[in-house]
Amino acid sequence: MARPDDRSADQLRPVTIRRGWLTHAEGSVLVEFGGTRVLCAATVQGSVPRWRRDSGLGWVTAEYAMLPRATTTRNDRESVKGKIGGRTHEISRLVGRSLRACVDFKALGENTVLLDCDVLEADGGTRTAAITGAYVALADAVAWMRDRKMVKSSPLVGSVAAVSVGIIDGEPRLDLCYEEDVAAETDMNVVCTGDGRFVEVQGTAEGQPFDRSELDALLDLAAGGCAELTRIQQEVLGS
Amino acid sequence: MARPDDRSADQLRPVTIRRGWLTHAEGSVLVEFGGTRVLCAATVQGSVPRWRRDSGLGWVTAEYAMLPRATTTRNDRESVKGKIGGRTHEISRLVGRSLRACVDFKALGENTVLLDCDVLEADGGTRTAAITGAYVALADAVAWMRDRKMVKSSPLVGSVAAVSVGIIDGEPRLDLCYEEDVAAETDMNVVCTGDGRFVEVQGTAEGQPFDRSELDALLDLAAGGCAELTRIQQEVLGS
Amino acid sequence: MARPDDRSADQLRPVTIRRGWLTHAEGSVLVEFGGTRVLCAATVQGSVPRWRRDSGLGWVTAEYAMLPRATTTRNDRESVKGKIGGRTHEISRLVGRSLRACVDFKALGENTVLLDCDVLEADGGTRTAAITGAYVALADAVAWMRDRKMVKSSPLVGSVAAVSVGIIDGEPRLDLCYEEDVAAETDMNVVCTGDGRFVEVQGTAEGQPFDRSELDALLDLAAGGCAELTRIQQEVLGS
Amino acid sequence: MARPDDRSADQLRPVTIRRGWLTHAEGSVLVEFGGTRVLCAATVQGSVPRWRRDSGLGWVTAEYAMLPRATTTRNDRESVKGKIGGRTHEISRLVGRSLRACVDFKALGENTVLLDCDVLEADGGTRTAAITGAYVALADAVAWMRDRKMVKSSPLVGSVAAVSVGIIDGEPRLDLCYEEDVAAETDMNVVCTGDGRFVEVQGTAEGQPFDRSELDALLDLAAGGCAELTRIQQEVLGS
Amino acid sequence: MARPDDRSADQLRPVTIRRGWLTHAEGSVLVEFGGTRVLCAATVQGSVPRWRRDSGLGWVTAEYAMLPRATTTRNDRESVKGKIGGRTHEISRLVGRSLRACVDFKALGENTVLLDCDVLEADGGTRTAAITGAYVALADAVAWMRDRKMVKSSPLVGSVAAVSVGIIDGEPRLDLCYEEDVAAETDMNVVCTGDGRFVEVQGTAEGQPFDRSELDALLDLAAGGCAELTRIQQEVLGS
Amino acid sequence: MARPDDRSADQLRPVTIRRGWLTHAEGSVLVEFGGTRVLCAATVQGSVPRWRRDSGLGWVTAEYAMLPRATTTRNDRESVKGKIGGRTHEISRLVGRSLRACVDFKALGENTVLLDCDVLEADGGTRTAAITGAYVALADAVAWMRDRKMVKSSPLVGSVAAVSVGIIDGEPRLDLCYEEDVAAETDMNVVCTGDGRFVEVQGTAEGQPFDRSELDALLDLAAGGCAELTRIQQEVLGS
Repeated sequence: MARPDDRSADQLRPVTIRRGWLTHAEGSVLVEFGGTRVLCAATVQGSVPRWRRDSGLGWVTAEYAMLPRATTTRNDRESVKGKIGGRTHEISRLVGRSLRACVDFKALGENTVLLDCDVLEADGGTRTAAITGAYVALADAVAWMRDRKMVKSSPLVGSVAAVSVGIIDGEPRLDLCYEEDVAAETDMNVVCTGDGRFVEVQGTAEGQPFDRSELDALLDLAAGGCAELTRIQQEVLGS
Repeated sequence: MARPDDRSADQLRPVTIRRGWLTHAEGSVLVEFGGTRVLCAATVQGSVPRWRRDSGLGWVTAEYAMLPRATTTRNDRESVKGKIGGRTHEISRLVGRSLRACVDFKALGENTVLLDCDVLEADGGTRTAAITGAYVALADAVAWMRDRKMVKSSPLVGSVAAVSVGIIDGEPRLDLCYEEDVAAETDMNVVCTGDGRFVEVQGTAEGQPFDRSELDALLDLAAGGCAELTRIQQEVLGS
Repeated sequence: MARPDDRSADQLRPVTIRRGWLTHAEGSVLVEFGGTRVLCAATVQGSVPRWRRDSGLGWVTAEYAMLPRATTTRNDRESVKGKIGGRTHEISRLVGRSLRACVDFKALGENTVLLDCDVLEADGGTRTAAITGAYVALADAVAWMRDRKMVKSSPLVGSVAAVSVGIIDGEPRLDLCYEEDVAAETDMNVVCTGDGRFVEVQGTAEGQPFDRSELDALLDLAAGGCAELTRIQQEVLGS
Repeated sequence: MARPDDRSADQLRPVTIRRGWLTHAEGSVLVEFGGTRVLCAATVQGSVPRWRRDSGLGWVTAEYAMLPRATTTRNDRESVKGKIGGRTHEISRLVGRSLRACVDFKALGENTVLLDCDVLEADGGTRTAAITGAYVALADAVAWMRDRKMVKSSPLVGSVAAVSVGIIDGEPRLDLCYEEDVAAETDMNVVCTGDGRFVEVQGTAEGQPFDRSELDALLDLAAGGCAELTRIQQEVLGS
Repeated sequence: MARPDDRSADQLRPVTIRRGWLTHAEGSVLVEFGGTRVLCAATVQGSVPRWRRDSGLGWVTAEYAMLPRATTTRNDRESVKGKIGGRTHEISRLVGRSLRACVDFKALGENTVLLDCDVLEADGGTRTAAITGAYVALADAVAWMRDRKMVKSSPLVGSVAAVSVGIIDGEPRLDLCYEEDVAAETDMNVVCTGDGRFVEVQGTAEGQPFDRSELDALLDLAAGGCAELTRIQQEVLGS
Repeated sequence: MARPDDRSADQLRPVTIRRGWLTHAEGSVLVEFGGTRVLCAATVQGSVPRWRRDSGLGWVTAEYAMLPRATTTRNDRESVKGKIGGRTHEISRLVGRSLRACVDFKALGENTVLLDCDVLEADGGTRTAAITGAYVALADAVAWMRDRKMVKSSPLVGSVAAVSVGIIDGEPRLDLCYEEDVAAETDMNVVCTGDGRFVEVQGTAEGQPFDRSELDALLDLAAGGCAELTRIQQEVLGS
């Protein structure tokens, strides 16, 4: 099975990150990984969750969701169903955890940055696009805080970016689209820091279990993809 | 209080309706009324709700929602709260009812068109933008059904458009932005058919009760606004 | 189609308002519009909702509900379903908004009056009966507060009453019973103040869209009906 | 502590049972035990719950609820809270179980009678008033079914009535009002058949545990009270 | 029908109570009544519910639940269903109420003991096993508090134990297993104090109503069973 | 920081797996990894979820939960809160996915095996103990099905076992207890098949991001731990 868009196995889809997509949010981007489009909005709150109060430390958290018609066939709204599904919960937690890896909570002070990642259209890799975009929204929110003297020094101690990799017909591939994601024997989401270390490695054998050499090949591919995404983030942030 | 954007009292904000904004939906538009942006997606389902089965008649319904950071300060997600708020319920019902006014359910056959209206950014008039945009998404979904011979003749017996009007400092104004909406003594949402009749008239005295002459002035203003929106819909649909 | 009870088109059903129907509530009435019976109970709370605290202003709110067997066929309980339906939400909001139109929140001080409107039996016009009855319960609760010196001057700046109107077979009619409500092409609920101004106008084309002259005829009819209801309220309150 | 209304220890409060209180329900009564008022509505459904299908047997069930202002201070609505409380659950189950004791499910055929017991005003003994009233509503619903030939012979094999008893200041008393209920050391609800046998005995030591002789005294008192209630039920049903 | 395990009618199943089954809980036991196994864990909290604050009094409460595969066929999890069923609610309330009967809340001070009773395997009598076991867990938690000087004198003013009784084929029997429970015409749960008084008597006619002599026989049997369980509790507690 | 129980870095805690712990379940084990105790119950259902019907394929799924007092301080019940938390959702999905890796769904036929994993006591590694134990319960349930001829050939195509690894003070360690889990900079859960391939690799930087060599060391450690657990499973299953 060739790649649907004729990419090479180690090539990302076209990635665009548009900053300032929303008027009100302290940071916001529309991030696109090919046909996947995620709106990431950063909200700054001058307080922390109850369990964190009087610690002198800040907090970063995230909520991920999908519009009902982001997908080929419509999904019922979780608000109408009255509960959040397991997948939504899991990805929200992953996004929040990933972003916390590049934050110095002491420098952030008792403030919270909440990242809303809403998938407007889904074509595979929504969680990795969300993390990659949310970092840029977070950086803008942090700049907004610095302008208002809410923080003295930058609470960002690095950056994070994420990409999916998988094995299709025995071939390790970078940044799977939906069609590839469905066909993958093994699927892995990797979150890296800008300096190339790992924050999250989540590999799942959807079909056949994978051996160590396959795992190694996927990690190599993902590390390369994250490095490229880090370059795009820096370019977009003008640094 | 002058209009924040120097419009005349009977002038709409800049209105744009972009068709085909989503890849998967049978009809979709991004509609903008000034700073208000709503994504309307039409989903065609080859069945009807249980209470409508074996009637030979179709159904049209809608779900309205707002992204958490569509507004100046963030609103908690209804999916996380585990229930739909009263305002969301009320507007979803209004949008569905309004669109049903231009549909011949016999011609639609036992199919449902579900309209998802998600507010990406809010600056007043989100429900009227949703109705105005949803009509175009519905028209595209209907065309999609005709292409597939799901319906023989067009189930659309007309069009609908909607606009808000209100009294600010004693002056009746068309298409209120958020700042005006908050300041209005009276606020009215009006849904009209393309031939100028009324589908919904919902007027509320937020501050002072209003008399009959004020009500008349608002209805005149709204009828004019809806006529202009109908023209824009037709232009966008190329008819 | 003649009126089921041989009324003239501009005639109300028999209306009765019994004060003091409950022993414990600070104000309570059983209001009947023909076969529609609603129990309205006013509860005085010496505080206001969180968002209203330290404003020096009071609050009035309402909750509307229907007993499961108020209707011809039984409706499932919303408590058992675990959520409030859209219609209930919408009417609760309407009742609260309507009653707030006759209250001076400064004079009320930081107190809340909560109006529970429970439909014991439904034969059309339950929301308008609820508003009309709730006003009397509110007046009694306010008197109760004055007796206890909780307020210095009366926080009531007027009165409100409500009635439904609709077009059946082309004829505008006042105060629809259930059978007429179902048959109506257009259905409108109107809330007026005692001095004849409008608080809410909610018109919906159930069948055919309506033109301006039909709208005018309905407004005339409703204004007359509200004036008659105001007279009945005053008589019942002995003023 | 004397009885608040000067009754003797073995005397019921004034009991009234008004049949046909609702227009639509197949059976309905407003039952009063002193200041306690419960509206009981019987709904006949021509089917049985899923687990009972194709058994040839009918079903009887009940739902108990309280209006928010039935009590001295207001209780939040369970529909608004989004869940049924433990007390409501428990009493609904008790009422259903009690009524099933006088029904021949084979004679009832695959039909369900659902009894809604809504407390309009509460002054102690709401569950026992509900059971006593619901029996009369059930009898009327059964008569309605016989008129329509839904059942051949009467599915009622007897009657049920219920009363509360308790020990206050060491004295066993019949049919406690709210003030006594709160003060009782031991509180017992007893459901009897018309022929004097027990269906439910639910005794609880609220304060001091009770010994066998106290239990015996309470059972004697309750049996007498139920016999008197049975007489009232028969009188009301004209048999 | 003979007893499935050849017991005599007035004989308990083998009862074992293992203390200290959990490492973390302030008191914990695994209690077995034949094939019924319940894990009872006592948690000490240094506060009381809001409505009890500043009263100087403590509180004891309980939560009862069943693992999904405690029974012959699996039951859906209440956490997954999103609500507690009526039976669970009812038993939780019963367990809490029963244990409060042996506690001096003044001596307990403003502390709460929460008893979690989780049924690992069910073979009838789960609620009575829960109460009997929870008392021992409570006693251990109270000892834990005394060790830490959280209480000065013992807040235990006695003990409680519980057993089920029922009539099968006309024969009153003690401590029903599941098979007997299903077959019983009448089923009764009785909670007694260590000195032989009654805390709860809950008798239900599942099949035929029962007369006074049957009730008396059941009470005798239950009192004997509770006395034996009290002896076992004391033995286990080494007192 | 030395290991709390003086294990070497690559040593498992004492692991015991007791089969047949429950009477009713088709397969059940109590698995212990040191102080962590999980009850795993397998339920065989002769049907598949709706979306899987008429596929000829079976299904395996899992539900993970924790008793409220499994932990040092008590956690509120998810059934009482009315919703499943994100962590519970995430682990339930992980356990189900892991076990599906060793099942041939065609050989299973249209049957479902549901694995309930309830944590009775938690001391770190509850999800890996759950997976390791659930495999044995699944194997027993499959044997039960073979005895009843529900399946012709074994639907098990291998086995799965799982273990946690982490870096504490720079040292990679196997099978973390709770105290180590909290202190770990990096935490990884690994699920392997009996033949040493990977099913799931979930690594998270709790503190510092980790580099490739640390990741490699953790994978080596985990692979060794899973091999040892596989040996224990085989021994317990007598094969």
